[in-house]
Amino acid sequence: MTLILGLDPSLSCTGWGIVRAEGSRLAHVANGQVATDPKAPMAERLHHLHDAIFAVIGAYRPDRAAAEEVFANKNPQSTLKLAQARGAVLAACGRASLPVSEHAARLVKKAIVGTGAAEKTQVQAMLKVLLPGAVIGGADAADALAVAIADAHLGGR
Amino acid sequence: MTLILGLDPSLSCTGWGIVRAEGSRLAHVANGQVATDPKAPMAERLHHLHDAIFAVIGAYRPDRAAAEEVFANKNPQSTLKLAQARGAVLAACGRASLPVSEHAARLVKKAIVGTGAAEKTQVQAMLKVLLPGAVIGGADAADALAVAIADAHLGGR
Repeated sequence: MTLILGLDPSLSCTGWGIVRAEGSRLAHVANGQVATDPKAPMAERLHHLHDAIFAVIGAYRPDRAAAEEVFANKNPQSTLKLAQARGAVLAACGRASLPVSEHAARLVKKAIVGTGAAEKTQVQAMLKVLLPGAVIGGADAADALAVAIADAHLGGR
Repeated sequence: MTLILGLDPSLSCTGWGIVRAEGSRLAHVANGQVATDPKAPMAERLHHLHDAIFAVIGAYRPDRAAAEEVFANKNPQSTLKLAQARGAVLAACGRASLPVSEHAARLVKKAIVGTGAAEKTQVQAMLKVLLPGAVIGGADAADALAVAIADAHLGGR
């Protein structure tokens, strides 16, 4: 039995989701979103993300974590914000000695829907099938659960 | 008397430097560089930066911190690495409730050399004048001290 923490870092709202993988069987454990105050100073927002994800790790003790590979957005300012948030969140994984795999977005979609070109709505529909009964906290938590499921399929590689 | 922590975050080597400002008088307190193992996983490297800077803050108890404004590099991969390192380091400031000011690179140069178009070598030469006797640990520590001095001049704004 393996507990996998999926992460979808972003400065305004970081999604997280935990699934339990037992062979090819998957089950939902928990998910959530960490929002930061857009009016708070950057260091405080980054710390909030870091601290919240560190607390999630402490509460659920996952065996490994996974996030989508980051890519440079067309808007450099968005890329910088996203990457700073990602740095704060991954540092929390490092602090908890949690190994983190990175998966290309298209591999995550392929693992969930069967094609790397799937739409976001298709991914969300499949999540309901793959994790029946899970109450998902929002779009960012859904993205995080998708990464966790993909990581279960990809075996943390 | 104000202790100011200057930071020059980067994934491979983050520089830090602390100066004491008393009115218009400046004195060197300490400086250093935190290198990360390029072969270690990203989360571990980010945690190492986070942890080391958090330890520096705990050891010297600065009143505030400062870093250069981050900008999007021509190489998107370098920008992503830099911004992730910055996120891990700023989260450590947030964790220590340390306010962080961000200064444009040209304002830092102007505060040290008198012109925003100064060369790196001019900045380093002026550091020796402004902080006589300081033994500076390397180019990244020098950049961090420059930011701290600029912040002293700019009053943490």
